[in-house]
Amino acid sequence: MTPSFDALQKQLKKLPGVGYRSAERMAIHLLLEKPESAHSLIDVLKQANGNVSSCPICGNICEDAECSICIDERRSESGSVCVVEQVSDLLSLEKSGAYRGSYHVLHGKLSPINGVGPSDLNFDSLMKRVEVGAISELILALPNDIEGEATCHYLTDLLEPYGVNVSRIGFGLPSGGSVLYADAVTLKSALDARQTFQ
Amino acid sequence: MTPSFDALQKQLKKLPGVGYRSAERMAIHLLLEKPESAHSLIDVLKQANGNVSSCPICGNICEDAECSICIDERRSESGSVCVVEQVSDLLSLEKSGAYRGSYHVLHGKLSPINGVGPSDLNFDSLMKRVEVGAISELILALPNDIEGEATCHYLTDLLEPYGVNVSRIGFGLPSGGSVLYADAVTLKSALDARQTFQ
Repeated sequence: MTPSFDALQKQLKKLPGVGYRSAERMAIHLLLEKPESAHSLIDVLKQANGNVSSCPICGNICEDAECSICIDERRSESGSVCVVEQVSDLLSLEKSGAYRGSYHVLHGKLSPINGVGPSDLNFDSLMKRVEVGAISELILALPNDIEGEATCHYLTDLLEPYGVNVSRIGFGLPSGGSVLYADAVTLKSALDARQTFQ
Repeated sequence: MTPSFDALQKQLKKLPGVGYRSAERMAIHLLLEKPESAHSLIDVLKQANGNVSSCPICGNICEDAECSICIDERRSESGSVCVVEQVSDLLSLEKSGAYRGSYHVLHGKLSPINGVGPSDLNFDSLMKRVEVGAISELILALPNDIEGEATCHYLTDLLEPYGVNVSRIGFGLPSGGSVLYADAVTLKSALDARQTFQ
């Protein structure tokens, strides 16, 4: 439409989950409908971009030397570390309230086809945590796909000499799910993960 | 998660079509995954926010005194003006290539239930265009709903004394659409809009 508008639309389109039409709508909103929200967005983006970084211990979002989870002694003293692919996975687990140990965010999964190798993932700081003996149990909460599986195998091999108890989260039918609507791979996972019923 | 992160997420959530989870994904993308894209976004947003404004003639996006469509004499000389609700509607029509006159963007539609009255819409500059005799034909390309209908009636009454030829775009089955999958209201529009087949 105009050069500045097009530049903004192009930049918004780079955000995850935003397509051409959504970017157009957002740009119109920011420039014509609510110009004051463009200022607010610039302000919070600047501030967050200056303040927020990746936690050097676990890779979570943090504004201080360590993230709010690593700084909590009750959580790190448990010795239990849950390995996740992305920060958003960590946030989901936190919201569920089902886990009270600490985390390690890999920021990806091994994927040779996409050129993602071990050096691209946050393995170094995990190994440091293992070497200083801070981890007794490692729970792999990585995706139920080929890359997630490969990453789990790689980590298990890497950690074998350290005697860490490594487990992977269960797979199967989700809560409220029925066999009727489950896909074939989920059903295979669920059958493989069957347990004696008491 | 952290105060700056939460502030950014809250601000992103205000964008049209962005929910809680998308805002979270975007904030993680902007702060951890691609921090350089946060800088680019700040830059283009600043520049666009300074340059882009609403065209004083038609309400379209513009960076100069008039928008690129109003400045084009071949288009304004046609005397045909297409009235649309939003800038994005104008962009859709432009992309279709089906219309070569000029536009008028109302930035909304009459909706008493949402507190949108005539003074909230871009009617004043439309009346100015009518009064100076710049408009001979007005095509109402407003939505096929109650508010769109009400806005069409309001505009028709408003323009009656000026002898402008007012028409409304056709409604019915979309291109490629079949009667089988069309909803009841579309079918009613399509039946009402039936024309002699030659």
